[in-house]
Amino acid sequence: MEEQVPGAIGTSGSLALRFGQIIFSAASLAFMCVGVEFYAYTSFCFLVTIKGLSVPWSLTMAMVDASSVFAHRPSRRLHIVSVVVIGDWLLSLLSLAAACSAASVADYMVTETGASGFVCGKKVCSRYQVSAAMAFMSWCLSLASALFNTWLLPSLYY
Amino acid sequence: MEEQVPGAIGTSGSLALRFGQIIFSAASLAFMCVGVEFYAYTSFCFLVTIKGLSVPWSLTMAMVDASSVFAHRPSRRLHIVSVVVIGDWLLSLLSLAAACSAASVADYMVTETGASGFVCGKKVCSRYQVSAAMAFMSWCLSLASALFNTWLLPSLYY
Repeated sequence: MEEQVPGAIGTSGSLALRFGQIIFSAASLAFMCVGVEFYAYTSFCFLVTIKGLSVPWSLTMAMVDASSVFAHRPSRRLHIVSVVVIGDWLLSLLSLAAACSAASVADYMVTETGASGFVCGKKVCSRYQVSAAMAFMSWCLSLASALFNTWLLPSLYY
Repeated sequence: MEEQVPGAIGTSGSLALRFGQIIFSAASLAFMCVGVEFYAYTSFCFLVTIKGLSVPWSLTMAMVDASSVFAHRPSRRLHIVSVVVIGDWLLSLLSLAAACSAASVADYMVTETGASGFVCGKKVCSRYQVSAAMAFMSWCLSLASALFNTWLLPSLYY
């Protein structure tokens, strides 16, 4: 007997969450990459790597949800949901780590500018900050997906 | 019918995990606080705050485990375990965030020293790094506790 968990895999709520993740992750990548020398800083490289992983993952999950919502193909088998839950939690933890690293380094750069000369220009610094903020947004949505899918898991197992 | 999950609340494995958390958190706090001006940097203040929260939490949980192991008082009621799971996950996420922030700022300080003069002395910088490493260790143990207790939860619920 399956429960109907809103936001779990195969519902329209989940599709909306995945689209949100794709949009925020792509925005974070765009603000970080375009015209900014992110590769000089370890934590910005980490952010770009993790967002580069999480965009394809969310895209795949969005396709699975869409096939379930529009074509009514069920995707709630135990082994599929287990893999999705593990992937979601892994990417959620990594994206929290990446967002925190980027945010703290961006904040440090902004506060240190006055004391010891320019670390980054005003425009560039604010782009780093916006990118970190977008990464946090995408982390929130990704945590929500992970929680909803975890909630679904025991009802498939028992 | 209760399962016997090794490492879940009330077992000796859990007691060992909690002691590990206390030791690593306290070490992280000590390396960060003693004689170092951590309060000038937002992310180091964040680390100190979170470690200051997680030491009492782990201490309380260690006492609960000890009373269960040595005095054989059961502590596995649904509402107790639920509160423990929520607290564990919250502190685990916050301590990951704090560890990442501290590690990335410490790393940034070390790499920037060559380019624009001294950001921190060699001795102070390495203390920041050791503190961040200890925070990561304590996060690993805290994640393990959270996972074991989450694993226990459905067997109490159904």
